[in-house]
Amino acid sequence: MKNEALTRQVYQLIKRLYDYGVREVVISPGSRSTPLAMASEVHPELKTYIHPDERSAAFFALGLIKATERPVAVICTSGTAASNFTPAVTEAYISQLPLVVLTGDRPHELRNVGAPQAVDQVRMYSNFVKFEIDFPLADLYDAPHDLIEATMLQASYHFEGADRGPVHFNVPFREPLIPDLTAGELLTPEPVAVFEEERTVDLSALRPLLEAGNGVMVVGDCQHQKLDHVLEAAEQFKLPVLADVLSQLRGLDHPHLVRTADTLFKSQQTIRPGFIIRVGKPVVSKQLNQWLTKQTCPQILVQEKSEPDTFPVVPPYHFNMQPAAFFKSMLKLEAEVKHDLVSVFQQLEHALSDVIESHIRTVTDEGTAVAKLLQQIPADEVIFFGNSMPIRDGDTFMQRGRAYCNRGANGIDGVVSTALGMAAHETVNLFIGDISLYHDMNGLIMHKLEQSDIRVIVLNNDGGGIFSYLPQREEEALFERLYGTPLGLDFSHVAALYDLEYRLADEDMKLPEETHVLYEVRTDRTANYEAHQALYQAAQAALNA
Amino acid sequence: MKNEALTRQVYQLIKRLYDYGVREVVISPGSRSTPLAMASEVHPELKTYIHPDERSAAFFALGLIKATERPVAVICTSGTAASNFTPAVTEAYISQLPLVVLTGDRPHELRNVGAPQAVDQVRMYSNFVKFEIDFPLADLYDAPHDLIEATMLQASYHFEGADRGPVHFNVPFREPLIPDLTAGELLTPEPVAVFEEERTVDLSALRPLLEAGNGVMVVGDCQHQKLDHVLEAAEQFKLPVLADVLSQLRGLDHPHLVRTADTLFKSQQTIRPGFIIRVGKPVVSKQLNQWLTKQTCPQILVQEKSEPDTFPVVPPYHFNMQPAAFFKSMLKLEAEVKHDLVSVFQQLEHALSDVIESHIRTVTDEGTAVAKLLQQIPADEVIFFGNSMPIRDGDTFMQRGRAYCNRGANGIDGVVSTALGMAAHETVNLFIGDISLYHDMNGLIMHKLEQSDIRVIVLNNDGGGIFSYLPQREEEALFERLYGTPLGLDFSHVAALYDLEYRLADEDMKLPEETHVLYEVRTDRTANYEAHQALYQAAQAALNA
Repeated sequence: MKNEALTRQVYQLIKRLYDYGVREVVISPGSRSTPLAMASEVHPELKTYIHPDERSAAFFALGLIKATERPVAVICTSGTAASNFTPAVTEAYISQLPLVVLTGDRPHELRNVGAPQAVDQVRMYSNFVKFEIDFPLADLYDAPHDLIEATMLQASYHFEGADRGPVHFNVPFREPLIPDLTAGELLTPEPVAVFEEERTVDLSALRPLLEAGNGVMVVGDCQHQKLDHVLEAAEQFKLPVLADVLSQLRGLDHPHLVRTADTLFKSQQTIRPGFIIRVGKPVVSKQLNQWLTKQTCPQILVQEKSEPDTFPVVPPYHFNMQPAAFFKSMLKLEAEVKHDLVSVFQQLEHALSDVIESHIRTVTDEGTAVAKLLQQIPADEVIFFGNSMPIRDGDTFMQRGRAYCNRGANGIDGVVSTALGMAAHETVNLFIGDISLYHDMNGLIMHKLEQSDIRVIVLNNDGGGIFSYLPQREEEALFERLYGTPLGLDFSHVAALYDLEYRLADEDMKLPEETHVLYEVRTDRTANYEAHQALYQAAQAALNA
Repeated sequence: MKNEALTRQVYQLIKRLYDYGVREVVISPGSRSTPLAMASEVHPELKTYIHPDERSAAFFALGLIKATERPVAVICTSGTAASNFTPAVTEAYISQLPLVVLTGDRPHELRNVGAPQAVDQVRMYSNFVKFEIDFPLADLYDAPHDLIEATMLQASYHFEGADRGPVHFNVPFREPLIPDLTAGELLTPEPVAVFEEERTVDLSALRPLLEAGNGVMVVGDCQHQKLDHVLEAAEQFKLPVLADVLSQLRGLDHPHLVRTADTLFKSQQTIRPGFIIRVGKPVVSKQLNQWLTKQTCPQILVQEKSEPDTFPVVPPYHFNMQPAAFFKSMLKLEAEVKHDLVSVFQQLEHALSDVIESHIRTVTDEGTAVAKLLQQIPADEVIFFGNSMPIRDGDTFMQRGRAYCNRGANGIDGVVSTALGMAAHETVNLFIGDISLYHDMNGLIMHKLEQSDIRVIVLNNDGGGIFSYLPQREEEALFERLYGTPLGLDFSHVAALYDLEYRLADEDMKLPEETHVLYEVRTDRTANYEAHQALYQAAQAALNA
């Protein structure tokens, strides 16, 4: 076998990645990572993508993870290439996404001596990974092979479950770098055994609370966590369900669902429930979070996560388990619910829906543009929101549909790429601001190379629109320079560069039927701010009436 | 005073940055970093730049550092924004550039609880900074102010000298975030005292070596280190000076200078000197480095650096000092040099210059395009080379001029931005490959916003040209997908997007007189490879004759 030690080591590593669930690999070209790239490319079952910008590549992988709920590997060469993965690794850590980072490295004798393209890659992502290892160089002893078995098993504990998140394998290679491409039998898949486990919890201590009633359920982004039985539980225990834009519940049809919580709590915060069940990540709505911090009733957090998200308020009851398992156990409880808030919330929802619909009909701004376009998206397509205003407008206006967002660290970076990663599997409608689109413009290369089905809807307010909603807007002398930051970009050039059809929105705000389109909605930051204020005033008036 | 504790803390921090030498600050917009951004903006003497992409922003700052030889600060908000600085911080560490990283952070009670836009920023760049501190929240005790004094003094030890490099201040802020903009007197500059020191070294132990003679000097990138007296020393001790493309020596006129070492050592490696003085960073030329590893004579390393670059070979003599100081001490030695290689190298240089000139005249490829354009660059303008092939072609063909490169980690990332950072101070001619230009396309926003004087010369071989020179080219089945990676980008759209005039090169290869231009040279990867082989064959033939 040619280059036998290296071939055996790297083939075993890639083989075991597949065996433990990886199906897709994003490769950023480079020389030192040749063994990893070639082994992935010749693996019979792995799908590879080639992405020339590591920053976007790793965010693209996050999109693949979101679409498939599987771990996805990224490969890069030594040097700053690896540093470019850091933003997506950071987001993956907060969002619990199993990104498997494989960095090719120089051999130990070329580290820290001034050799080209060598940086200290050992533990370079320490703040943001669940597991990390610096491999030894390949040799023909059994020990390194046992080490791969051991570390892959350890790393796989972060591919799903409460401790899901990114892992880092730093793999040094000495030249020659080309493995034996005829040794494909070393890559033959050999699945690892998986056993389904079911967790139950005895919730009888909660019965008095549930029976006293007037409970409310708040469901945020649950990501990979299963939500089954949530609506059955809502019915059985007479709970209104405040469904965040990322809860994946808004597309369902159920009388307990509340989709207007953001507008509600922006307008009034007077409701006082008997208890609150919070499910998944904290919600997008700042106003709902503020309302939660003001409640004195018991809060129950259901979230499978190595440490619970204690924001916005530390819950006295916390269940580190899949919501589906929690609700299944809950459904076994028999309880006579004395009081409930279902009809209260139904009335509020009804009144606010009218206000919002009338607002959408009569006002022209960025928020209502988002609203009108959302209404036209086919039910089988995915919605992806950029951070800052698009996700907030989505939370305010999205009545149905399945929405995603990089809502771990809430960055405006990598959004295009994550959406395009999802677009490798589903048709995606991306709502994104102009600064965020600029920030990850390189991500559009994957549209050019893969021709993925995507509509890129850019909400162009020529600058940092969200800052208009912050106290900084009062400092007029500095505001436009430090926060407004108009870039004046002509997005028709961007569309042309990356093989997208360019469309400029007109008043009809008609969603293009075709995909592969960049649809630009030009808006005005001041008008947007005023329209949002008008909506809350109208809502307040309706609630007072 | 409004918001007094925060105002006092952040104004003192920014004031002291100025006092310790910072003159320019690159700000990426964000809310949490408001105190840092506003304090910089209202400082009477600091120049600020606004850059919406943190990755490019930090590389832009590296360009400012290269142009001014001063520390430069970058500011960003909390979250993945900070992670986007990582690539430039990595390059700054290896290149010893004093990048002062200021990251706004959430207050401690909002860290690690699931709060929005909060990631673990404490020691997040540990592998790549010389100094790091996580600040306390502002208060009105004296202690935090003393802490700023203490840490700024400590950090300033990395602003110049052997231990120069990036530093990280993580600064948490609790709302409200707006400092008192009328408290400008807190920013009044108060320079710190600077004393010039002069180092000398007794080199008499080297006299026998110098007298035995046949020495050679190899000068690499010396960055901020002063090179004065190098040519006087070369004359006094009869040393040919092999000047790397980044040595800043090629623009000088001196009979000892050798500019063709890369071609020479690609063609033959038979010269055996009596000793070698290596100055600054390892050279660009792989062949020269290989030749160095084969020499058995003593090597002397002169480089001011906290740990010496021991690549490509560990020198028995090493001087951790500025080359200028070393040569000044050397000039005091009296020595009768018995043998020398000056005329040997002069003959080689003469022969190889003829070969190279004839090659440039008769061959059309990427290398000769670079050569022809280099000859037309006005003497007062700066040349910036991208990594991979442009810097190598520069090393082969550049006969005169002042050239820069991100030659720490040798990344293809951030090149546009670093060149534009330099262009804020000087007229820059950037030679860059198509993948590298794509990688940092966002960096061009600073041309649009600042209208800097730059010619962007893109050498478009539609893919990863350098890989054609590596053994991977033999694996034809995988090569084009994993390494060739053609992107098919039409750079006229890029030019239009960022307010550059687009020019497509024709056979004349005439450098545009005007700046603000994107000049595209289309080349063919296979032809480029063959042309480079032809040059070395011609050189070999000439040397054999």
